[in-house]
Amino acid sequence: MTTRPTVRLRPQANARRIRHGFPWVYANELVTDRRTKALAAGSIATLEDNDRRPLATVAITPASKIICRVLDLDPNADIATDWIKARISAAYTHRERLYDTPFYRLIHAEADDLPGVVIDRFGDVAVMQPNAAWADQLQDVLADALVEVTGVTTVIKNASGRARSLEGLDEENAVLCGAAPDFIEVPMNGAIYIADMIAGQKTGLFFDQRDNHAFVKSLSQGATVLDVFSHVGGFSLAALAGGAASAVAVDGSAAALDLATRGADLAGFADRFKTRQGDAFDVMTQMQQNGLGFDVVICDPPAFAPNKNALDAGLRAYERVARLGANLIVPEGGYLTLCSCSHTATPDKFRLACVRGIGRAGRRAQLIRTGYAGPDHPQHPQLAESGYLKALTFRIF
Amino acid sequence: MTTRPTVRLRPQANARRIRHGFPWVYANELVTDRRTKALAAGSIATLEDNDRRPLATVAITPASKIICRVLDLDPNADIATDWIKARISAAYTHRERLYDTPFYRLIHAEADDLPGVVIDRFGDVAVMQPNAAWADQLQDVLADALVEVTGVTTVIKNASGRARSLEGLDEENAVLCGAAPDFIEVPMNGAIYIADMIAGQKTGLFFDQRDNHAFVKSLSQGATVLDVFSHVGGFSLAALAGGAASAVAVDGSAAALDLATRGADLAGFADRFKTRQGDAFDVMTQMQQNGLGFDVVICDPPAFAPNKNALDAGLRAYERVARLGANLIVPEGGYLTLCSCSHTATPDKFRLACVRGIGRAGRRAQLIRTGYAGPDHPQHPQLAESGYLKALTFRIF
Repeated sequence: MTTRPTVRLRPQANARRIRHGFPWVYANELVTDRRTKALAAGSIATLEDNDRRPLATVAITPASKIICRVLDLDPNADIATDWIKARISAAYTHRERLYDTPFYRLIHAEADDLPGVVIDRFGDVAVMQPNAAWADQLQDVLADALVEVTGVTTVIKNASGRARSLEGLDEENAVLCGAAPDFIEVPMNGAIYIADMIAGQKTGLFFDQRDNHAFVKSLSQGATVLDVFSHVGGFSLAALAGGAASAVAVDGSAAALDLATRGADLAGFADRFKTRQGDAFDVMTQMQQNGLGFDVVICDPPAFAPNKNALDAGLRAYERVARLGANLIVPEGGYLTLCSCSHTATPDKFRLACVRGIGRAGRRAQLIRTGYAGPDHPQHPQLAESGYLKALTFRIF
Repeated sequence: MTTRPTVRLRPQANARRIRHGFPWVYANELVTDRRTKALAAGSIATLEDNDRRPLATVAITPASKIICRVLDLDPNADIATDWIKARISAAYTHRERLYDTPFYRLIHAEADDLPGVVIDRFGDVAVMQPNAAWADQLQDVLADALVEVTGVTTVIKNASGRARSLEGLDEENAVLCGAAPDFIEVPMNGAIYIADMIAGQKTGLFFDQRDNHAFVKSLSQGATVLDVFSHVGGFSLAALAGGAASAVAVDGSAAALDLATRGADLAGFADRFKTRQGDAFDVMTQMQQNGLGFDVVICDPPAFAPNKNALDAGLRAYERVARLGANLIVPEGGYLTLCSCSHTATPDKFRLACVRGIGRAGRRAQLIRTGYAGPDHPQHPQLAESGYLKALTFRIF
């Protein structure tokens, strides 16, 4: 046996919650004596309850508010190649069942039993975000296991995750194995998206909106479509694949719009696709002043309420987006899809902000669909209130 | 002008809420003098605020807790053929955009601006539930407008809605026009369902689960499937259309299982489909005792929490269903879909009951999808907290 360190819950900590699957121990729940504080970030340890009964195998980051992440309820689990391969295999089986092509989120952190680890797959390339110290240390084991289980040939490390600084980790990207392409063509919903493997946001492309793209596609036959905060054209290219008469993508980033245009060209949509670079609020306001109207409008802004302090201002921003979006819908029952990726804006709060905004535009609405992130983004059952992505589709009169 | 009656809000009533689209006036918000109490149920009236400013055209049912239903924010709207045709047309355009075949919920009451009216379409046949007094009185106008707008040839009145007694309405079904078939074959998700036009529950078939059926179908290739509380086989026939190796439908109703079997026969699924009539709890318990396991299990029980008083007992029943269902899943990451059609069991409460039940079975889970009723069941924005149908899919380990 290894001489693995042991850490212990305080008397008032809820050991039962851990036994029932809650994946985190907060710093104020753990006995943090000098020995524990001295452990290297990412150390694998055995968690005990206050009566010294072993509870679980955990990874510890002494300086983090989430001081332990539960890796396995087996207190003697060997966190090495076989263990990691089994976790990746379980996740892989699910995605292979869901999708015909190998483009998906493969590992969604705690929900896929690899705490702090996010891995997206783009065909032969995997992009890994080891956002917890234990995973950063085991990055090569993770990469080897990925290659073996899924057959990918390239593993890229993306170190841009915001959580990394809380874990004391650097921001250095790396190619862990294989040769990294600059761009990858990603087929989804009958469109082609260009994922930027190096400079792109997050892991190059957002897989989480796939089902919401598909729903907008199903509404778009013959429609004029406006895709605001378009990034690389997620909604607009899907709408064009669904037979939209035209689509305009609006984004602040010229680079993202270039990728959208390349995707439109590759799929043969060039003659129906336009982009407009600029501040989304300004562009929407101008379009309304110019009397423009669309059959289908989508607004998928960045997180306006990234934390609790920003919630009220964030909800007002969502309300404003809803008002501006509703103003741009033709009067005969067009469709407005409003998205939020803010954890703190719960589905109820976000929906109410949207309804207020639509009302302020002097328009009436039906709510026809509430969508979330797709099934390659599972939720941990004990963390499921935190489903971050919401996509509401309203029909506007 | 007609000499339409006028009704008036009390001073403390929230006129602004009505102006902003809330569709109901409760009895304690209205001046109910002798004249108002004497109005016939279903009378069309002009609603005024307490300062006698006209607010809306409403239908009044003096004996009902929902004393007024707002039909139009235009206080002078003429509630007759043209008005009804415009409402049906607006709803029809949306469904025709959504679906390739004419099988859908056409009118979803308040959300489709026809308060209290539910209409399902089965090809050439429409089944109407005029569950408010105003609509019951105008049933022939509604039927004529339906024929004219959609081209259906038969309109059946289903008077089984629970709300009808609150409106003082009888339970007499009728064929309002055309010839009513006994059964209709309904193609959905690659399966064929047999809708019983006369004896069936609600309007013969549940369209609301269509998208949730489709998701289970997408998981079912090669799988063994158990469909508990199956009704006419909604989930199991879709799973077979998705390539399930076998499916077993369990229901208390032999008549519903007969319809399921007829659907399976018509689609060529007979050799992969079995039914078992009996109490769902008993059957699931027996199956576990016999050591049976399935790759995919769906439990879609009747409303266990139909009202607030039944909420606690209802949530315990949902928890029990989750436990029994999880026990029947093979250990290697099978899928459990749990549904609730109880208004009072909110998504959060229902999810927690499910997670508790899965935990009591000694199993671990990921939540991979939260689904609601499909987009032919829109929600009124001011009533949207009442989304009744939830379908949660867990992956079970």
